[in-house]
Parts: sequence; structure tokens; C-alpha cells
Amino acid sequence: MNWTVSERSFEPGRITTNGNKYMTGNGYMGFRGVLEEFGKEQLTAVTLAGVYDRAGDKWREPVNAPNGMFTVVSCDGKVLSVLETEPLAHLQSLELRAAVHRRETVFSIRDGGQVTLTAERFVSMDQLHVLAGKWTIHSTVDCRIEIETGIDGEVWDINGPHLFEQRNQLKEGVLLATAVTGELQLPVAVAEQADFAFAEQRIHGEGALRTVSFDAKAGETYEWYKYVAVFTGLDMEGEPAVQAVRTVRAAAEAGYAELLAAHCRKWEERWLSSDVVIEGDDDAQFALRYSIYQLLIIAPTLSEKVSIPARGLSGQVYKGAVFWDTEMFMLPFFLHSDPGIARNLMMYRIHTLDGARRKAAEYGYLGAFYAWESQDSGDDACTLFNVNDVFTGRPMRTYFRDKQVHISADVVHGIWQYIQFTGDDSMLADGGAEVIWECARFLYSYAYYNPVKKRYEILDVTGPDEYHERINNNAFTNALVQETLEIALRTAGLLQDKYPAVYAELAGQFAHGPFLAEFTDMLEHFYVPQPDPETLVIEQFDRYLKLEEVALAELKSRVINKHEYWGGGNGLATTTRILKQADVVLMLNLFKGKFSKEVKQANWEFYEPRTEHGSSLSPCIYALVAADIGLPDWGYPYFMRTATVDLTGESKQYVGDLYIGGTHPAANGGAWMAAVLGFAGLQFDGITAVMNPALPKAWKAVELPVVLRGDSFRLQISREEITVTAAPDNSEAVAFAGFGGEPELCGPGIQLRLRAQGKAQEAELQISSEMQGRFTQKS
Amino acid sequence: MNWTVSERSFEPGRITTNGNKYMTGNGYMGFRGVLEEFGKEQLTAVTLAGVYDRAGDKWREPVNAPNGMFTVVSCDGKVLSVLETEPLAHLQSLELRAAVHRRETVFSIRDGGQVTLTAERFVSMDQLHVLAGKWTIHSTVDCRIEIETGIDGEVWDINGPHLFEQRNQLKEGVLLATAVTGELQLPVAVAEQADFAFAEQRIHGEGALRTVSFDAKAGETYEWYKYVAVFTGLDMEGEPAVQAVRTVRAAAEAGYAELLAAHCRKWEERWLSSDVVIEGDDDAQFALRYSIYQLLIIAPTLSEKVSIPARGLSGQVYKGAVFWDTEMFMLPFFLHSDPGIARNLMMYRIHTLDGARRKAAEYGYLGAFYAWESQDSGDDACTLFNVNDVFTGRPMRTYFRDKQVHISADVVHGIWQYIQFTGDDSMLADGGAEVIWECARFLYSYAYYNPVKKRYEILDVTGPDEYHERINNNAFTNALVQETLEIALRTAGLLQDKYPAVYAELAGQFAHGPFLAEFTDMLEHFYVPQPDPETLVIEQFDRYLKLEEVALAELKSRVINKHEYWGGGNGLATTTRILKQADVVLMLNLFKGKFSKEVKQANWEFYEPRTEHGSSLSPCIYALVAADIGLPDWGYPYFMRTATVDLTGESKQYVGDLYIGGTHPAANGGAWMAAVLGFAGLQFDGITAVMNPALPKAWKAVELPVVLRGDSFRLQISREEITVTAAPDNSEAVAFAGFGGEPELCGPGIQLRLRAQGKAQEAELQISSEMQGRFTQKS
Repeated sequence: MNWTVSERSFEPGRITTNGNKYMTGNGYMGFRGVLEEFGKEQLTAVTLAGVYDRAGDKWREPVNAPNGMFTVVSCDGKVLSVLETEPLAHLQSLELRAAVHRRETVFSIRDGGQVTLTAERFVSMDQLHVLAGKWTIHSTVDCRIEIETGIDGEVWDINGPHLFEQRNQLKEGVLLATAVTGELQLPVAVAEQADFAFAEQRIHGEGALRTVSFDAKAGETYEWYKYVAVFTGLDMEGEPAVQAVRTVRAAAEAGYAELLAAHCRKWEERWLSSDVVIEGDDDAQFALRYSIYQLLIIAPTLSEKVSIPARGLSGQVYKGAVFWDTEMFMLPFFLHSDPGIARNLMMYRIHTLDGARRKAAEYGYLGAFYAWESQDSGDDACTLFNVNDVFTGRPMRTYFRDKQVHISADVVHGIWQYIQFTGDDSMLADGGAEVIWECARFLYSYAYYNPVKKRYEILDVTGPDEYHERINNNAFTNALVQETLEIALRTAGLLQDKYPAVYAELAGQFAHGPFLAEFTDMLEHFYVPQPDPETLVIEQFDRYLKLEEVALAELKSRVINKHEYWGGGNGLATTTRILKQADVVLMLNLFKGKFSKEVKQANWEFYEPRTEHGSSLSPCIYALVAADIGLPDWGYPYFMRTATVDLTGESKQYVGDLYIGGTHPAANGGAWMAAVLGFAGLQFDGITAVMNPALPKAWKAVELPVVLRGDSFRLQISREEITVTAAPDNSEAVAFAGFGGEPELCGPGIQLRLRAQGKAQEAELQISSEMQGRFTQKS
Repeated sequence: MNWTVSERSFEPGRITTNGNKYMTGNGYMGFRGVLEEFGKEQLTAVTLAGVYDRAGDKWREPVNAPNGMFTVVSCDGKVLSVLETEPLAHLQSLELRAAVHRRETVFSIRDGGQVTLTAERFVSMDQLHVLAGKWTIHSTVDCRIEIETGIDGEVWDINGPHLFEQRNQLKEGVLLATAVTGELQLPVAVAEQADFAFAEQRIHGEGALRTVSFDAKAGETYEWYKYVAVFTGLDMEGEPAVQAVRTVRAAAEAGYAELLAAHCRKWEERWLSSDVVIEGDDDAQFALRYSIYQLLIIAPTLSEKVSIPARGLSGQVYKGAVFWDTEMFMLPFFLHSDPGIARNLMMYRIHTLDGARRKAAEYGYLGAFYAWESQDSGDDACTLFNVNDVFTGRPMRTYFRDKQVHISADVVHGIWQYIQFTGDDSMLADGGAEVIWECARFLYSYAYYNPVKKRYEILDVTGPDEYHERINNNAFTNALVQETLEIALRTAGLLQDKYPAVYAELAGQFAHGPFLAEFTDMLEHFYVPQPDPETLVIEQFDRYLKLEEVALAELKSRVINKHEYWGGGNGLATTTRILKQADVVLMLNLFKGKFSKEVKQANWEFYEPRTEHGSSLSPCIYALVAADIGLPDWGYPYFMRTATVDLTGESKQYVGDLYIGGTHPAANGGAWMAAVLGFAGLQFDGITAVMNPALPKAWKAVELPVVLRGDSFRLQISREEITVTAAPDNSEAVAFAGFGGEPELCGPGIQLRLRAQGKAQEAELQISSEMQGRFTQKS
């Protein structure tokens, strides 16, 4: 099977796209898929997770570190760079299994000679502060080679500058570039060491660069290595500059091969617990694997104080901010494959509770109103003017920040998903209960009581479909608010039972209400839009059906400026029924147990033609619900569109005049959800894993690992049969049910077969050693 | 004193402005201030009050009748028209006392000769269906004159055509043009008769025109007359065509002089009961008199089924629709000068209750949601897309129609004003109570209860300042809603007491509520924004003070297109503190008894610099409140701006690409309010007329007639002394108080003097015969 993304030509027009497509990273930092000679004009970025800075009154955004991999090679005084010379041949590739980026470029030089330059690099998954690279150079004729390499302090910023007091030092062969951020005065240190076996190094005065010149002999291959270490003031391991130098020395000492081997081992483990195998559809297989890759390179493995931004670590787009995308589109993947990361993601919300409280207070509400665009402190990075009007150039008032109140319910949903799925209710005592209750208190204070209809309503919100702002009783939002109230009440029971001291403390804190009594009252009289008895369609919000009915193609024909924003005050879609993205259908997916197949199908059929899919969060949801209603082939194109978004680069690049390109972790997570929760039909409620597969035509079977309540299983799911294999060192039996059958327990080391027809199910007591090898050892 | 508006040159660029400035009318129809040779390109219009038509899916608007005054004179084959030839001399004038329009134009003809053309016309205030005109022609040399005159069926329409089946007939010398409207199939008939003593008439085939040719002798003056009668299917007097012919014959029979004399007598009566005399300021006097004139020509004297449109009868602008302008800006003038017309205006709202009920139901509310733009049926003529975006040419979603809920409270306010002022509570039994309660029911159903703040709020409205749409807790709106609830409860008491049968019937109708119990509960827990304890400023709406603080001049400098709309989704003012028009300050004027001088002054000073005065409804309010706080000279410029708006034509002519020119009855009424209720300081609560004058520097005194509870008085108000003269045939004594003194009763035929200093007040038993002549006899 193919594990490699590659292309065999260099096209200047694809520099930005490839920067996303060939990303590497390890959750601590992301490294864009640039070539080594690229600078800030080519959007080179070493984006640091969780490090943010604000320059002046510009948008706050993540900090990019100086690029320690920067290298330019010259031959006989002529620069060998794809930016200056069209190469004879060029290959850029990314090996997904080990997350290694490679390039090989052949340049023509004088007298018919050719120089071949290769570079290989990785962002270590074993040592999260380390990058390492290996270069080779080969000439067909004798020539003079000059290598300029070191740390490029000219970093790409959208709303910079962020690095001040930049200083370059040489410490016994180690280049050290240090700086501090402007707003928080956080130190940032990048150390680099190079290992040239064949020539002397000379250090530049400027820019922390070293120059290596030598006479290359025809036919010989010259190889060298670079090691880079990155530290910031957020790292708890000591003074960043000291740490960077120490770490880069140790890395060089260990050497490239050893570093790479350790890196590969870590990746092997990752894939073992996350790779999904699709039999029968190589394109889908590749796209899904690529999607999983994108999630793995940005997952916060160690820190519970960072989460995953909407554009991953691919730069500063969307202010490096964390959106609801994490809870709704990425969390399920991590819940199933690496619950530790899922825990980190949700703990991030607990750590940012105070920011959410500040935001609620800012708008005159109680409790916690989570940031629409969350950064390190949980304060909202989203502005009230997030898009510019292309017709006037003026900032346009949008209601992302102050009206998308569902974000607080999304956070509660995520925490509860985590607790239900993993059984790890300690998160409630670790701040989870406080978050849940503060979110419920916020939503209670946001709600209004309609005295004529005698019910609570949620007014003046923006739902997932952002083209319709300031609407009343959005079906999605209200359903999630209802869930929040239910969870808030269940949390009380759970806490009283298992963590009575925590309960007592929090109950005291909220004694003046609104608290459980108010939540109960609201829940009893709360309005959630329901399917129309005739059409089964759930109206997206009050009076949605009064809006202009217009075909999507017709609406597109009204576009005057291709970058114009369809939403906002005067947007093209605002006064029509056209949606940006799945909204009611997303709600049907979240609460699939509450609605009949007929309702789901009616709404799918109603809303899909009216959906622009202007967000990468949209198509996967239509794939999921199509699978849910047994029509996977309706869903398949949406799955493929989702799974290939970062391969093709075919997504919206502009909203108004705002660049919004980058990677799409939510789509990556959505692709996984569509494949596993949709087509493979897996659903785990914390007790029983139910599988009702609805595989697309070409798919023969899906095989995947899952971690359920701390135990590991492999699932092989086909149309006829499901095999569940429990790891030998599992601690408990878990119940599985397939094809609508009764649940069967599957204990440690057991293999369970569930058949589509009849009740013929059998359990094997022993599993093969080959199958045993497909589990990691419990740590 | 000057009673004449005139100008002594013809400027093509002023044709539209003069069409408004030189308006004549009688409440049944308006006749724009055009010249006789003008056609539809010059916006000639005979606008019929209360007759509306909708062509296709265009905006519904009033119907213009064919112009029976159309006349073109030629001399030796050359047309004598200002549109074709620059005249040697030209005079256009309007005599306000008798509402007679005149023009005199001198044209140069061959051989140094000159032809002088005069035309005089009036829209009869005595016979409301009749127009009459007198022409003269005089040449300094012998020449051949041809007069083409008759009925011009080519009517000006903004959203036409409205007249179908147009037919021209000749009936024994009477030209008859008939047609039917498209939507309601209402017949419209215009009959014309001409009286030429000196030549034969010949009738054209086309367009209901007649031609008269004759050899004019040098030095002779030739005079002729025209009579026109207009009837429609709304008139209850029989078949319109028959009536028109019969009426025009009778008019011709009576002759011009007699018609004019009857017309003048009616006008004399009108002025007797409405003219306000300002001593010491001729400019203000003239502007105020002109404003009153504009109100008198559009007042519905006979019908209680029409009200006054926002642009009077000056054409089809604003769809000929009736806005809140009537209740808030025009009603006070009529209450004080002609309560019968005030009654008609409010009865119009009672007759259109069903339309208001339909609108409430359309939006899912109870009760009556009055039309923002009301026509004959009370259904809302306002569209959801009332303005076009000048940058894209696209219709812009505005929230005039569905969010300006204060209109229902304004209607209640108007009815209550009428009842309190006149003491005529029969209106409650005639439908007024039902309107009041249905409006209260609507507002109750629109309100929401905030469970945390434990209060009812009014959310998602647009207040008077239309630049800020969809706001919460607009101080103006909430104050009026509170008043509506109070009135609704007081109505119950009054009705139970005086009209128990009506009460019983309506109480039965509303038995299922919401009714009095709900109104009481809401009133007890209702939120009305109050002055900030520190600054005394009342926040216009929730979070208004969070908006951008920007100077008006700075905002103007941001304008890209001079016609761009400052409000709406992306409007320049939308996200700033700049207001279109008085909002909080208007509320302070309506409820002047509830707020201290300090609060009024603080808000005047805060809001005035932030007010664009982009509506003609704005400056007069600042004049009123300035007078109220004893600073009339602050208010004077706003008064003058208001009073001269239709003289200068200096008002906004476009909103987006929509023409909004025409006359400004609300400003006319506002000028009267500023002079009488503001500077003269008159306030009548149904029991006592209080006068606290605050005259502008130049004003020595103000004299005016008022009708209080059916009795007539003349007030002479100066800084030192107020004289109240009661008509001898008054039925009761009314209490008057001046300069903060105690009320004194003023019985029939009594003259009361109230002095500014001390309590020296004296009553004279006899009034002079000259003073007696200044009252009309009671009819």
C-alpha cells in the first residue's frame, strides 16, 4: 500500500499549497512543507503550539520560531534554488509512516554538468524539541560548492513582528538564535548544530548562518547533517537557551540515524493504535491515512494546556486559535485511538475556564462563555470585525464571537463524551464539573422565557451555519443546550456519589444560583425545534422557511466578487435558505439515537441541496448521516471530498480579503469519523460497542484498532462479519453488538465473530501471535 | 406680513424641489407645484389620498389621477414652454392664505414681440373634488395663438402603471377621462370643462385634449378658465364618471370667482383656528406659517379612513404610506387646532386594526402589530428589502417592517393623547379600546422574561434611530411599551365605568389572555432603561455605549458613495454611536414630566453631537427639549432647520438608490410643536393648560388659537405675560397656569392675564369685539 505523498515537478504556484500538504510536526511544533532554501516569502514557518503574541493592535496569533533548517547551496557561485533556476528534475515527498520529508532536485550547471541535491528531515516524535535533517550533494563534474546554512531569523508573520531582541550567538560550534516575544516577553531559543565531515565551517556575522565551501569531485556524494532544538519560556525544563544548546548537542552526539530510529519507533506505535485499513479502495485508504497523519502531527501528546487549532500547526491562519472543531470533529478520533490526547484536549478547556468566565462577564452573563477563537488564556481572539467587505474594504461586523453560544455547549459535550467513552470520571473532579456547571449557568443566563408560549428559548445566536447570524431557536444550538442541562444534572448525581467533597465545594460556590433547581426548571420548559409532522424537516431556526428559496447555482451566479463573503449583514446567502455548512444534519448526527431514519433522510434530502459546503466541516457530516440511514454511496463523495481536502488544496482560500488557507484538522477528523463512525458504523456508549456497518460499494472491509475504557481491541468489519479481537492484557470484558444483534462480551485475549445473518456468533479463546503483534504493550 | 412663497426665475434644476414647495391640496388630493405645461417627466402628479394600487410585484403606492389642468400655449407655431424656451421673465408663487398657485411667464416671440402668460389655480377647499384655474394671455404684437388644454393621461408613476382601460370621452363640452386601477379595479374619473369666451374649441382625438386657436391682437388680454372634477370608486357619492361630469358642470356654472370665494372662506376659517403669530421674527413666522400651510393642504377633513402619508400628498414617495410620523409629529397640531381631524387620524388606525392583526399573526405574535408603512387596508407596505446597496446594486435587508414594534405603542399613544386632550372618550367605545388592548397583547407576546434579572425585556427591535437595527431594550421603545401597558389598564377602568357593555364584550373576546392580569404582571416587572446615576445619560439600548465612539465629521469622511445608506448590515453608522435621529431625546420629550431638567440636559448634550439628523423628524425634537430645559437659543437653529425643510428643499433626497424627496409633514408638524409646545411652552393634560414660555432671543411673543376639550381660546404668550381669551360661546371654564403659577379658571368670554412675576393675575369679564372676531362660530 502507498504511504507516500509526492510530486515530481516544481511549480511555483503550488508553494503555498505544498507548504500545507507536506507538513511535518509533533504537536509541539509544526514545520511547513517548504524546501530548505525557502524563506518567509514562501511562508516558511516553524509554528509553536500554544505560544501566542500580539503585535500592536493587530490580531493575536501564534509565534513562528526562526527556521534552523534553512540551507542554500551554490555551485560555482550560482545559487541552486528552485526559486531561481528551473531544475532538471525535482521530487518532493512525504513518507507518512515515519513522517519524513524528502526532496531531491537536479540542477544543470556549466558544461553540461548536473548537481543533485537531496534533503531529508523530520520533526522528532521522540524528542519533541528536536528537528534533524540529512543532506547530500552530488555533481557529475568537478565544481566548487558553497553551502550556506544555519538559522533564518526572518520569520513569516501575518500580524507580526513577534520576536524582539533577536540575538545570534556561537557556542562552541552551536549556533544559537534567541529572542523574546513582544507581549508576554517569552524567551524563544533555537539552537543548531551541523555536522560536515568533509569541510570546514565558517560562521557569518549576519543571521546566524555558517558557510561551508569545498571542491566537489565529479561522481562523489557529500553528505551532512543538521540538528535543531527549539525551546520557549512555556517549557518547564529550564532556561530555553541553555536547554536548546544542551539538547542540540545531545542530538548531534546521538547522531542522525539513532534519532531517526527513535522517531520511527514512536510513529510505529502511533500508527499501530490509529491506522484504519480499508480493503478494496486504495484512493479512500490513502486519503484516510493521510487525514490521520495530519491529526497525528498536531496532537498535543504531552501538554494539557494546548489544544489543536483550526488550521493545525500549519501557520498563523485563524490566529492559531482553537475552535469548536476540536470537540466536534477531532475529539472522536483521539477518543478511539489515544484517550490520553483526548484528555489533554478537554483539560485545555478546563484550564481556560477563567477566560470563558471573563467573556461571559464581558457580555453581562453568568458562568462561562467559551471563546469562539481560543488561545492560551481562553480569552477570545475573535474580533467583532472578522471579515472585510470586498466591495468597500471596510471591516464587516460579524457575529462569530458574541453569538455562537453553542461553543459552551460544545465544550460540555466534549467533556461528557470523554467521560462516557473512557469511563474516566476523574475529569469531573479535576475541573470538569465546574466547567459543565459554569457553561450551564451561562446558557441559563442567556436564555429567555417566552410568557405566551410558556417555554425557555435561546434567542439571537449564530449556529454552525454562519451565513445566518443572529437567529432565534437554532435547532442545533437548542439541542446542545438541552444536552448541557441534562449533563449538568447528571454531573450532580455523579459527583455527589463519587466525589462528595468536590460536590460540596462547588455546590457552595453556586449556592446563590442559578444552579440545579434552575437547570431543572429550564429543562422542563425548554423549546427544542422538532420535525414537522408532515415533512419531517426540522426548521433550522425560527422563520428559516420564510427565507428566499434559491438554487445554489443561481446564488453562485449572483456573485460579483469571487472573494465576497456570503454571510454578514448584506451577504448573498443571508436572506436565503442556502447554508454554509451542515447544521440541522450535524445535530442529527450528534443525537442519532433520538431521531428515526425517516427524519434523518428527510432532513438530509432537504438540506443537502441547500448547503454550500463553504466550510471543510460540512461534507463529512453528510457522509456520516448518509451512512447512518443506510445510504453509504450517497455519503461516499462527501467522505472523499473531506479526506482529500489537504491533498488537493481545493478549499476556500479567502473569506473577504482574509487568507484562510492551511491544513484542515477538522476535516481530517471528519474523514476518520465518516469512515469509522459512519461507514464502519461503530458506536460506543461507554458500555456497549455497537457496529452497524454500511460500507460504500468498493469497500470490502475496514480494520481498525480502538481503545475502549482503557482496553485495546482490533475490529475487522465487513458486510457479512465483524471480528473483534481483544488484546491479551486487557483488564475487562467489553460488550460488542453487530448487525443489530444482541451484545456479546469480549474478554482479554478473546476473538469474537459477529455475523450479519442469524445469530451465529462464536468466540475463539485464543488469538494468533500475528494478531497479538498488532497490539502495543500496555504502558 | 408676508404670506407668499415665490421666485422670479425659472431654473430647470429646481423643478422637482418646486413641485414640493409649491404644493396645493385639500386632503382629498394633492397637486404638485408644477407649471401647466409640465408632464410626467417633470413629476406632475394629482395624488389621490387613500387610493392605492400595486403593479405586478412592485411596491404598492398611491394612484395619481390624470392631470386635468394640463395646458400648453403656442404662438405662431412655437411652443411657449419654460421647458423649451428660456423665458424673458418668470414668476412662480404660492399665496398661503388662500392656497392659490400662480405663475406669470414672459416669452420673447418674433419681431421683438413678447407674450405674457399667466395661470392661477387652486384645489378647492370648499368642494374637495374640484380644481379650478384661470389663464390670461397677452401679446405685445399681433400673433396667432394656439392653446392645447385638457386632461393629460400620461401620469407620473414610480411603480406604475396603475391606470388601465383608459378612455377619453366628450360629453357636451365636458372632457371625461376614465380608467380603472389594476389591483382593486377602482374606477378613476377626471372631468374637465373649459370656458373660452373668445374662440372656438376643437377636441383632439388623442389624450382628451382640446385645441383653441385665435388671432391675438397686440395689447389685448385674453382670459379663460378651466374646471376639473376628480372622483374615484372610493367616494361614496355614486358612479365616479357621472359624478365627475355633474360636478364639473356645476363648477363651471358657478364660475371661477364664486368657487374661489368659497375656497377662500374655507381657508380663512382654517387659518383662524391654526395660524400662529410670532412677534419679532419674520423668518421664523414665515417658515412656521408655511409649515402649517403644508399640514392644512393634506389634512383629511372628511374621511376617517385615510391618514397623512410621510410625504403628504406630494407624490408616491415612501409608497404614500402612513408612518408613526402622524401620531408623533402631526397629531399635536391637529389636536390643538382641529380635533375633528385629529379624530379622523386616529380613527384611521381603528379602521386598519385588522391589517395590524394580520401582521402580528404573520410573525407569530398575538394582537396587533401596526404596519410600519400603512396604506388603505393596514397591511404593511414596507418590504424587508427597503433600500438598495449602492456598492452592489443588491436589495439590502432592513428591519423597518418587522422590528420597529414601537409603532403599535405609538398608535396607542396617539389614541390616548386624543382622548386625554379632547376628553372625547367615545373613541374607546368606537374601537379605540380594542386597538389599545390588541397592541398591548402584541407587545406582551413580543416581550421575553429574563429569568436571571427577573424582568420582562423587549428584545430585537429597531427604535427611532434606524441606523441601529435589531437592538435590545431600546429606551424609547421600552418607555412606550410601559405606557401602553398603563393605558391598557386605565382603559379597562374607564370602559368598565362608562361603557360597561363594550367592556364586557371585549373582556369576553380576550378572556383567554393575555389580558389585564398579564399586563399587570408585565408592568410590575418591566425593564425601562434609566439614567446612569453618574452621568445621567440613558443608554439608548443595551450595549450602545460599547459601540465605536467617532465624531460625526470623521464618520462623514469615511463615506465612499454619497448615497450610501449609513444603516443596515454593513452601514457606516451601524457599529458606531452615531444616531440617525433623536431617540432617547424623543423619549424625554414624550415623557417630559418624568425626568428632571438635569437628565434632559445631560442627554441633550450627550446625544446631540452624535446625531446625524438624517431624518427630518430629528431637529425639531432637539428644539423641543432645548426649550423644555430653558435653553431656547440652543433649540432655535433646529427649529429653523425643521420649519424650512420644504422651503429650501435641503433634505436627504436618496437612501441608497431610492429617491425619498417630497414634502415633510412630520417636520411641518415638528416646527409647530417646537414653536408652540417648545418655545411657547404650552402643555395641556386634559385638565389644565400649563404655559412655561422659553422664547428664543428674537421672539417677543407668540399668539395662537387652541381648542381645548371642545372650547376655543386664544393665547398671547410673551416673556412677561400670558393672555388667555376664551371664546364667548365656550361651554365650560378651563384651567390655565403660567410661569409656574397656580391654575386659574377661564370661563366663556373671559380674558385671563397671567404675569411672570409674583402672582398678579387678573381676569377681565369682557373681551373686545375685535378679539371676538378672532373666533369662529361654533358649528
